[in-house]
Amino acid sequence: MEDKLIITIDREYGSGGHEVGRRLAEQLGIKFYDEELIERAASVTGYVPDYIKDNDEKAPDYSIASMFTGIDTFQSSPYAKIQEEQFRIIREIASEGSCVIVGRAADYILSDERHVSIFVFAPIEERLKRKLRLEVVNKKPEPLDAPAMEKKIKQKDKQRRRYYEFYTDNKWGGRDVYDLLINTSRTGIDGAVDIIKTYIESGKDQDILSGIVEK
Amino acid sequence: MEDKLIITIDREYGSGGHEVGRRLAEQLGIKFYDEELIERAASVTGYVPDYIKDNDEKAPDYSIASMFTGIDTFQSSPYAKIQEEQFRIIREIASEGSCVIVGRAADYILSDERHVSIFVFAPIEERLKRKLRLEVVNKKPEPLDAPAMEKKIKQKDKQRRRYYEFYTDNKWGGRDVYDLLINTSRTGIDGAVDIIKTYIESGKDQDILSGIVEK
Repeated sequence: MEDKLIITIDREYGSGGHEVGRRLAEQLGIKFYDEELIERAASVTGYVPDYIKDNDEKAPDYSIASMFTGIDTFQSSPYAKIQEEQFRIIREIASEGSCVIVGRAADYILSDERHVSIFVFAPIEERLKRKLRLEVVNKKPEPLDAPAMEKKIKQKDKQRRRYYEFYTDNKWGGRDVYDLLINTSRTGIDGAVDIIKTYIESGKDQDILSGIVEK
Repeated sequence: MEDKLIITIDREYGSGGHEVGRRLAEQLGIKFYDEELIERAASVTGYVPDYIKDNDEKAPDYSIASMFTGIDTFQSSPYAKIQEEQFRIIREIASEGSCVIVGRAADYILSDERHVSIFVFAPIEERLKRKLRLEVVNKKPEPLDAPAMEKKIKQKDKQRRRYYEFYTDNKWGGRDVYDLLINTSRTGIDGAVDIIKTYIESGKDQDILSGIVEK
């Protein structure tokens, strides 16, 4: 790979997007950012990682908004500063070299920079199955039961959609803004990684006119 | 490939879905159906192929609906008979063996049968570019100009959406009902074929729990 390769992955909660991104970056030998962005934002802004994590990928809610009297005070709020800093860091990271970035509207933030934009999804029953298994595998001391987990999944998806649509002009998970959308309930994690790798290899320097045979 | 492999491809007009399907079937050595379905329906129903083609992938419009006084007469109309026959033929074809079927709500018709469901799309500017080039390549005697072609593309998409949503409970091109959605403006035709092939190989017998490492 001679060129810089930037891959953004957005994902429904529980679809395995984080793991797809991590393995993809590992196999391609390039950097991987997900919560790592939080650490980096923390070190720059001076806010503690936990505070940033609490507000990560969230649109401002009414309780935050109501703390400020106008757009000027909102823009100087810790919440707005952290988001602004994360977006700056995403641009910085992309300028540094090849990487995989998960979430945080990175595909939109990097719209001026050539990148591959992936969306990973799965039916909610399948994501529920996966998250419940992970509670066991990760030996969570108080594992969530199915109804609680289903509620969490829906809440997280809603949060991500609100965040994405607050900061961009696009529809979260709407096909038009992505290069490839993958249903992991049929491919598993490694299958999705393979598909993205094929995408990168085959799709290189192609456009929609490729494959038209001149007569 | 020991198992039967059924692949359905739906597509935005001009995105190259037909060509992706044709080459995919060729490379996999399996049957390919697009307009071929029309011929087969013609031979069974006794209607001429041109009549069937005029009504192909179209929801009934008001002028057809107004010809009939009730649902019973609609269901016995030539339009309804042809659709019913096409759906029967799609099921028959799928039962015969491995194949690629383009359009005609085949993914929905075959929902009881395991199959891979693909949606192919591209930004309208790119599809316009492709269709205009095809007018030249195919030496059309009266090639459409850009505004006329753009109008045609939008009309065809609308027609396909209306058809799909008339016969199914799903949203045409909405990610949830597909396994993979591919933007051909970045992959070209052959890139998309490669991605689907990787999907078939890697995704085989995988599910969303694949890739969870037990600790």
